[in-house]
Amino acid sequence: MAYPGYGSPPGGWQPSAPPPGMDPFYQYFSAVAGADGQISVSELQRCLNSLNWTQFSESTCQIMISMLDRDRSGQMGYNEFKELWPVLQQWRGTFVRLDTNKSGYIEAAELGNALRGFGYNVSPQFVNLVLLKFDYETRSRLNLDQFVMALIMLRGLTDAFRKRDVSQSGQASFAYDEFMSEAIYHKP
Amino acid sequence: MAYPGYGSPPGGWQPSAPPPGMDPFYQYFSAVAGADGQISVSELQRCLNSLNWTQFSESTCQIMISMLDRDRSGQMGYNEFKELWPVLQQWRGTFVRLDTNKSGYIEAAELGNALRGFGYNVSPQFVNLVLLKFDYETRSRLNLDQFVMALIMLRGLTDAFRKRDVSQSGQASFAYDEFMSEAIYHKP
Repeated sequence: MAYPGYGSPPGGWQPSAPPPGMDPFYQYFSAVAGADGQISVSELQRCLNSLNWTQFSESTCQIMISMLDRDRSGQMGYNEFKELWPVLQQWRGTFVRLDTNKSGYIEAAELGNALRGFGYNVSPQFVNLVLLKFDYETRSRLNLDQFVMALIMLRGLTDAFRKRDVSQSGQASFAYDEFMSEAIYHKP
Repeated sequence: MAYPGYGSPPGGWQPSAPPPGMDPFYQYFSAVAGADGQISVSELQRCLNSLNWTQFSESTCQIMISMLDRDRSGQMGYNEFKELWPVLQQWRGTFVRLDTNKSGYIEAAELGNALRGFGYNVSPQFVNLVLLKFDYETRSRLNLDQFVMALIMLRGLTDAFRKRDVSQSGQASFAYDEFMSEAIYHKP
């Protein structure tokens, strides 16, 4: 179940590491974050929607922030934004590549390929469940917003499982409280 | 971790069992369901909001239907509606009893009491996590809509856990696919 570590660089773009003042990505971050130097859910939503990739929902922007929110501030600082960016580009790249007819949606077969491409060892039944639960229009297809939301939940749950599957057997034991907490923590 | 079985009768009210044509609850159901004899998400939402208990969200109505949707129709038939009704009344009764200052919200201590009252063996940390994840206004309190959504998710996850905890030890083993599927299936 190896899958690319979070924060791996995207195809062409790599955050640079000069002092913040010199870094063009820092300037971009500052423009998005405004005076308080932190990106809120609505600021992230506005920023991502200005890219015209898809309409990102408030819930997806919320879960993107939560995924990286180590200080539990509810907002996104520069390092977190820099960490999000290449992963989001990678996810979008996969989506665009799989959406061969440029419909803005991927269907069951493509979603299965995408998940297996990211190293998730998932059954066709599981792929159908993901479609059922993340496709709010119940048309058995995901747009980029729903795809990103699903990937974030899968990533979080897989990490939680792997931490307990020390022998990498694909089987893990949970106390009641742990099981409940992981499922609830990773819900959008 | 015993907790009241789903479908247990409410304090005062018990669905009666005459033939559907004679049953006043069936007449109520028919009025809500309309010509197709099935209650959709929006019909359930309209029906529940007419009670003026709280504003039930589309997501909560959706998860109420999913919880009982054994035929995967995406709608609610008479038997399912009859099953939902007393449980919802029980949950609302608990909520109203705990909301002593009639604010329309319950806070951490009350939520913990409610969950323990339903037989869930949960820690204060877990109660705080539930608040964090279901309170979209991040004010550390839940309204009735959020409370019901949380209870449905807890109920589904607890059932999934209990099925695998055959010795009732509070510990259960999951294959990767099972763990992922349960967490995703029970998300709102």
